[in-house]
Amino acid sequence: MSSSFGRLFRITTFGESHGGGVGVVIDGCPPRISLGEADIQHELDRRRPGQSALVSARQEADRCEILSGVFEGETLGTPIAILVRNLDARPEAYREMKEAFRPSHADFTYQAKYGIRNWQGGGRAAARETIGRVAAGAVAQKVLAILFPGLEIVAYVTHVYDIAATVDSRAVTRERVEANPVRCPDEIAAQKMMQAIEQARAGGDSLGGVIECVIRGAPPGWGEPVFDKLEADLAKAMLSLPATKGFEIGSGFGAAAMKGSEHNDPFEIRKDEVRTATNRSGGVQGGISNGENIIFRVAFKPTATIAREQKTVTAAKKETTLAARGRHDPCVLPRAVPMVDAMASLVLCDHALRQRSIS
Amino acid sequence: MSSSFGRLFRITTFGESHGGGVGVVIDGCPPRISLGEADIQHELDRRRPGQSALVSARQEADRCEILSGVFEGETLGTPIAILVRNLDARPEAYREMKEAFRPSHADFTYQAKYGIRNWQGGGRAAARETIGRVAAGAVAQKVLAILFPGLEIVAYVTHVYDIAATVDSRAVTRERVEANPVRCPDEIAAQKMMQAIEQARAGGDSLGGVIECVIRGAPPGWGEPVFDKLEADLAKAMLSLPATKGFEIGSGFGAAAMKGSEHNDPFEIRKDEVRTATNRSGGVQGGISNGENIIFRVAFKPTATIAREQKTVTAAKKETTLAARGRHDPCVLPRAVPMVDAMASLVLCDHALRQRSIS
Amino acid sequence: MSSSFGRLFRITTFGESHGGGVGVVIDGCPPRISLGEADIQHELDRRRPGQSALVSARQEADRCEILSGVFEGETLGTPIAILVRNLDARPEAYREMKEAFRPSHADFTYQAKYGIRNWQGGGRAAARETIGRVAAGAVAQKVLAILFPGLEIVAYVTHVYDIAATVDSRAVTRERVEANPVRCPDEIAAQKMMQAIEQARAGGDSLGGVIECVIRGAPPGWGEPVFDKLEADLAKAMLSLPATKGFEIGSGFGAAAMKGSEHNDPFEIRKDEVRTATNRSGGVQGGISNGENIIFRVAFKPTATIAREQKTVTAAKKETTLAARGRHDPCVLPRAVPMVDAMASLVLCDHALRQRSIS
Amino acid sequence: MSSSFGRLFRITTFGESHGGGVGVVIDGCPPRISLGEADIQHELDRRRPGQSALVSARQEADRCEILSGVFEGETLGTPIAILVRNLDARPEAYREMKEAFRPSHADFTYQAKYGIRNWQGGGRAAARETIGRVAAGAVAQKVLAILFPGLEIVAYVTHVYDIAATVDSRAVTRERVEANPVRCPDEIAAQKMMQAIEQARAGGDSLGGVIECVIRGAPPGWGEPVFDKLEADLAKAMLSLPATKGFEIGSGFGAAAMKGSEHNDPFEIRKDEVRTATNRSGGVQGGISNGENIIFRVAFKPTATIAREQKTVTAAKKETTLAARGRHDPCVLPRAVPMVDAMASLVLCDHALRQRSIS
Repeated sequence: MSSSFGRLFRITTFGESHGGGVGVVIDGCPPRISLGEADIQHELDRRRPGQSALVSARQEADRCEILSGVFEGETLGTPIAILVRNLDARPEAYREMKEAFRPSHADFTYQAKYGIRNWQGGGRAAARETIGRVAAGAVAQKVLAILFPGLEIVAYVTHVYDIAATVDSRAVTRERVEANPVRCPDEIAAQKMMQAIEQARAGGDSLGGVIECVIRGAPPGWGEPVFDKLEADLAKAMLSLPATKGFEIGSGFGAAAMKGSEHNDPFEIRKDEVRTATNRSGGVQGGISNGENIIFRVAFKPTATIAREQKTVTAAKKETTLAARGRHDPCVLPRAVPMVDAMASLVLCDHALRQRSIS
Repeated sequence: MSSSFGRLFRITTFGESHGGGVGVVIDGCPPRISLGEADIQHELDRRRPGQSALVSARQEADRCEILSGVFEGETLGTPIAILVRNLDARPEAYREMKEAFRPSHADFTYQAKYGIRNWQGGGRAAARETIGRVAAGAVAQKVLAILFPGLEIVAYVTHVYDIAATVDSRAVTRERVEANPVRCPDEIAAQKMMQAIEQARAGGDSLGGVIECVIRGAPPGWGEPVFDKLEADLAKAMLSLPATKGFEIGSGFGAAAMKGSEHNDPFEIRKDEVRTATNRSGGVQGGISNGENIIFRVAFKPTATIAREQKTVTAAKKETTLAARGRHDPCVLPRAVPMVDAMASLVLCDHALRQRSIS
Repeated sequence: MSSSFGRLFRITTFGESHGGGVGVVIDGCPPRISLGEADIQHELDRRRPGQSALVSARQEADRCEILSGVFEGETLGTPIAILVRNLDARPEAYREMKEAFRPSHADFTYQAKYGIRNWQGGGRAAARETIGRVAAGAVAQKVLAILFPGLEIVAYVTHVYDIAATVDSRAVTRERVEANPVRCPDEIAAQKMMQAIEQARAGGDSLGGVIECVIRGAPPGWGEPVFDKLEADLAKAMLSLPATKGFEIGSGFGAAAMKGSEHNDPFEIRKDEVRTATNRSGGVQGGISNGENIIFRVAFKPTATIAREQKTVTAAKKETTLAARGRHDPCVLPRAVPMVDAMASLVLCDHALRQRSIS
Repeated sequence: MSSSFGRLFRITTFGESHGGGVGVVIDGCPPRISLGEADIQHELDRRRPGQSALVSARQEADRCEILSGVFEGETLGTPIAILVRNLDARPEAYREMKEAFRPSHADFTYQAKYGIRNWQGGGRAAARETIGRVAAGAVAQKVLAILFPGLEIVAYVTHVYDIAATVDSRAVTRERVEANPVRCPDEIAAQKMMQAIEQARAGGDSLGGVIECVIRGAPPGWGEPVFDKLEADLAKAMLSLPATKGFEIGSGFGAAAMKGSEHNDPFEIRKDEVRTATNRSGGVQGGISNGENIIFRVAFKPTATIAREQKTVTAAKKETTLAARGRHDPCVLPRAVPMVDAMASLVLCDHALRQRSIS
């Protein structure tokens, strides 16, 4: 029951890391949106393993195929199904996991929930599951680009372990983000981050970090009162990504140590529009966009898969040890950037269509 | 479209701060659960204004009436509708808001979204909207108490402005939380918090803070892979509460600055059960509960309503100033504790029923 | 889980025949629609008992109260909650039902499903449950009237027992329907129907019948391919009404005995529009409206509650007999007409908003 | 937004008649259900074209591939994606449809709704769309067979044009249904039906008919009060199938001409169980199964595609004529039988899981 997301622009993902393939069905995409496999492939290439020395060496071209919903280069309004085959699965690398639960992975919880799991990899909990989301996010970005030409969504790495970047969220571009493999637009911090990641890999270890995302050009009025507040849907979207541990919008946890007189954003008139002088609200007030930049941050834990030997137990309740042999990322952040872009696009596109239905 | 929450234990809230009343319809509550108005009133009394000197002086008894779904003290399995009348509304206190948008409130965004708003108060964005959630949460707590007797949900204040409490999440009880009006179980910190809140009120200002919540006794297997991860649903639940700016689970944002070898929770066998030696995961792995304590934190901004004069604009795009005259809380944290309890209960109860449907 | 209907114009009903009251919450109603209690009361008066000699003598004024979502005579875009109190409940009339199951009622199935039931009446299975639907349908009609001024929805009785009316669906008006208490616009048939119903009542019996509904002025393009076909949603809407046993659209069951060359509707150009020369499709093709009149029929069984003694059993599995003593309708058709209007309005309004979100 | 069905056993179909393929994603299937491609292929073979002289000659092996959700022959609890490739598409046969709208097809309504359509066939409105449903229905049947071993679902043809069969719904088996290509278990009627269909084909025409379906062995308590009544969900399921015009349950439209004293089903005790002496209710009372056989009928119109020349119009609003050249079925009934089985299985499986969540 957990594989669908969105209300009007609604996606359903499928697929495990091992098996025939992974993909997504998008229902509710407006018709007559220009769309081709290249649009989707571009985003998939940003998330695929093997793209740089920093990430997993799994060799997957991750070629997508649009199975339905597109005709002569335009969307039909019917479901868009997208499939990516699994080609480089290596179940033998996971044989030990048949018995032992990897620490801080989902092996134990899947077994507890279902009484069965595909031990030949991470199953639905593997990063590979996000292919469907990224493919769908690429479609959402096409829809937004056509319906709301001024809208921009840019995610980027601001922290890896103890290294913090300095980024101007008002000016950062996706080009700058893509300029280095760690996807941090502060070039000096990026160099340090890459070194730290290499060092962690060499030591059989992994590192956590933070991704920030800015959405510029969203009109006022997106989002809903009460449960489907824009920030609530963004929080759910982000916390549904693997390895995430926290979400904050605008002032975030910093707001807790502030006074109202410091935190409130005064309204003013700029270019004949109602604007705020500051943006501690992070672009949403009462759950609804106010026309300012929407800005949020997501905390990622260090990759659970590490090469060092760790204590764990088997399904038969014996204590044992385990050291990862599969291919993995010493830091998920670089590949998580397009995932954050994708999930943000899905939330925005859904709320854009929702607003159309009542206005 | 935003007023429903949950999939199997599904609630729909209604009502503005001004108008006939507020309430909730709960659909999907299992039958034959002992339930009376007193069960609900107890939780409503924890959130109502006027309960202590720390909170809004609005005088509302907030008496609830169960309109349906209960017969001879037991749930019928049919929808439970609960109504609380609005009695102490004072629209005249809000007349200025007819024209001017209160800074960091939802006045402007509602107007932008709907082209209309009930300016006689906060409408759906008012704290009063949470009555329906707290009432529904009380029912969820009854269901959980009967079906899973060992389960405990305890939320409490850990930070107000710059004051931090020390709380042992493994031992804290709701009785200890209720022992002081600020709902912080560290008595020394609580005294300081109360002073700080009083001082803020005296200065026409307000304070932010943090609430932590621990869930003890949840079995392994609750939550879902992918989008409806337990932490994703909790994040959405919490970010849907008014004035929230952030959510983190387990290690949270702290995980970003950690290494995998420091962060992973080794498995071990305790009392013949699979357990983790540490709990940086915060009780969830891969979106599913692992049997450890579920622990998360929510950041609240300082109340937007302050007595100081602030710059703002009118609907006619004139710049003006505004100082609150209505009754309000100088710090939302004490009254937000039962809201966090309620939303956590709703998420847990929903996932408990979901797990029953497949097992 | 069964108390909500619609996707964008989404209603949730609550309430039993005995208890505090019945009502509905409407979520997703567009803002700035003129709405008052009188709009709703008008439709409730059409369905209430006691309005004529033909129907149940239960004395309920069924006064509605709008609790939320309307401000200064206009919808706010927030949930509209509507409450009708139960005043004339007579639980003592139902004491026998505490033990015995009424034949062809829901007493046994509710007991089997929930292990409990409110035996002081029909509970959620009572006709009284439809108050929430009729109230919501009145709101849907207001929305449709404002957004699509040419749209007309007219339901009417075509059959009672063995009496068939002749009605021109292209011309029939609601005024003609309301001209007699049986709600059959063929005055001669209506007289015979009234006699037959009186005779059934006198004999302690009840009668079935058929209601037809025509929707004129719906634009082409409403409805969806595959599962949410307009006729599928109408069928579900109608079969969800108490006492219904069948649904057909356009040619209906008659289509089964036809050839394609007889059944197909040739296209032609009329007034520069694509139109069909005949309308055996009933206004929908492939699940989507084609601009012709949408026309469907609903079969109702005779009221299960009859004064004659009937064989039945008790919860303790003893055989016994039962004769109804409560107030009831000898024929549900007259009061079911506004229910059919209401459900059709809800389906249409929902699909109208759905189409807006993609176009 | 129309491509999903079911609440807990939830399917999402995709695919047009022309393009990469068609299929389904099933979310919410319980884990550890034995499942292989052969289980699904068996049902797909029942619906595929080319299986007998009575049906379309389109040559499609319709080989299914399970892409996810199954591991070592058992379901994982994760989404099951099933894909069937389109191989024998012949877009050239449809070139005329690029301009002209086929009468009583969805060409015009899709164009009106979306402003675009895949004119190389029926798109989402083609019978080919039902592959995903039949595949999902096969999985639902496996789940039901394992969780409720006594449950049987048997659909069969009772009418083709003016030929009526005599079938004992209490005894009919799927083997008897499969004994002839028309899928009518009355062998004498079946022979006449086959002749009539051949004659229609020879005359370039097509025939309508009726399918009945009986569900034996469902326990009391499935279905919901109010909107998700079992018959309401069945009605929606059936009216969502292509070419359907009507649905009735139990006494159906016949109930309209009955008296309550004739129609009511007296309760009695048989083998220590509460049973009804007759079954005019058709196995459901108040929307909930009562343990008797659930029995319903579905009306199908004659196939819209006929070889005779028909009047129609073009997208440019010119009047023209059209005669089908594509391959098609002169009577949809034989191939619709497995579709009815599939949709009934989906509804039953969904309600079975729903009942588990509250009991």
